[in-house]
Amino acid sequence: MSHDAAPPDIEVVGLDADDTLWHNETYFADAQATFVQILAPWTPEGEDVLALHDATERANLELFGYGIKGFTLSMVETAIEVSRGEVSTSAIAELLRLGKEMLAHPVELLEGVAEAVDALAERHRLALITKGDLIHQETKIARSGLADRFERVEIVSEKDPPTYKAILERMEVAPDRFLMVGNSVRSDVLPVLELGGHAVHVPYAITWSHEEVDDDDRAAFPVMASLTEVVEWLSPSGR
Amino acid sequence: MSHDAAPPDIEVVGLDADDTLWHNETYFADAQATFVQILAPWTPEGEDVLALHDATERANLELFGYGIKGFTLSMVETAIEVSRGEVSTSAIAELLRLGKEMLAHPVELLEGVAEAVDALAERHRLALITKGDLIHQETKIARSGLADRFERVEIVSEKDPPTYKAILERMEVAPDRFLMVGNSVRSDVLPVLELGGHAVHVPYAITWSHEEVDDDDRAAFPVMASLTEVVEWLSPSGR
Repeated sequence: MSHDAAPPDIEVVGLDADDTLWHNETYFADAQATFVQILAPWTPEGEDVLALHDATERANLELFGYGIKGFTLSMVETAIEVSRGEVSTSAIAELLRLGKEMLAHPVELLEGVAEAVDALAERHRLALITKGDLIHQETKIARSGLADRFERVEIVSEKDPPTYKAILERMEVAPDRFLMVGNSVRSDVLPVLELGGHAVHVPYAITWSHEEVDDDDRAAFPVMASLTEVVEWLSPSGR
Repeated sequence: MSHDAAPPDIEVVGLDADDTLWHNETYFADAQATFVQILAPWTPEGEDVLALHDATERANLELFGYGIKGFTLSMVETAIEVSRGEVSTSAIAELLRLGKEMLAHPVELLEGVAEAVDALAERHRLALITKGDLIHQETKIARSGLADRFERVEIVSEKDPPTYKAILERMEVAPDRFLMVGNSVRSDVLPVLELGGHAVHVPYAITWSHEEVDDDDRAAFPVMASLTEVVEWLSPSGR
């Protein structure tokens, strides 16, 4: 892909974590497939278990926020609903185990990420900016081995313009010297552009439906295949 | 109660939130009573449901962290275990509703807290330092109406000396000019004293067993009946 030249004076690079630095959505997709299997004996013909789970998750989002514990509670709720209360308690116990397995899952960095983060850290101040469950995100950051490359780690409940504005103020950096990189147009790109900052979209193989945006919402921003490509774009050889 | 004179140059006052600014443990106790009732039809004679739930919560703490979502998942797990799988799915659905009711509960400030926080804010920089679930703590802080009195809000996964040290560094305050006030000796008092800071214990009516400390661990620190008493201690009349 060919892009416009990178903005010249990027001081701080913000990196999203899930599906930008390490795999995440894949595990959710795997867990959902297992969920469908576990529920199969009690699922009426033609019932779309995942659509129901998705609707339950959205309805619970304001109370539960993002993360696996809410995901798991919503699985249990969906299981009871789909089965009209007929689901066995051993199936529910399996759902609890599935949630715990997700929480305990090792962190697997995306290809080239460790080297790319090192290269970025040589020229920029780095911030890791992620939403989700506090303790689980902290655990993953610790397991990733990347924690010490970041000047700041910000675990937030929502990635909207006020949240980014507060982070930039705390880091004492002007929006036009800030570049955010992430896999979500909705959370990593649009709110930063709105503040007058820069952003690069690095899509992941799977996008959670909640993070999808309409094409109409798409402003102009670079889309790159990997964090490695972002590094090359920011630091052309010879500079 | 009579106390030694307050340390003279307190610049930053840190306040715990749950059971220091607003009621919390009461709701957990109420929920646990409801939990025991819901499970009663399936509880074998002599089985201590709450002791089992407490053990399950502790076993899950590393994965789940603090907060109501983990509390609820542990209730469901305990219900299946205590009932040997016999519990009804409608009882499990009730447990899910109970968890949601807890999350949606209005914030009720302890008596005198609003005035005490205002008085503290006149003379000190304030930090709210709380552990627990990110989105739920944020929601409660917003509902409390006190958010704008605090220079910083720190929602952390564990209140240990490294956590406090990082907060003091971010606020650029020396430990001996920092005073922490909270209802937990384990989380609000001992780690701050260890760093060379000051701390006041303001006990709440109920202490979660996880926060209890042995008497042997008790160092010398003031214990006061209310945040109002802390205000008076810090700013004797006429000064």
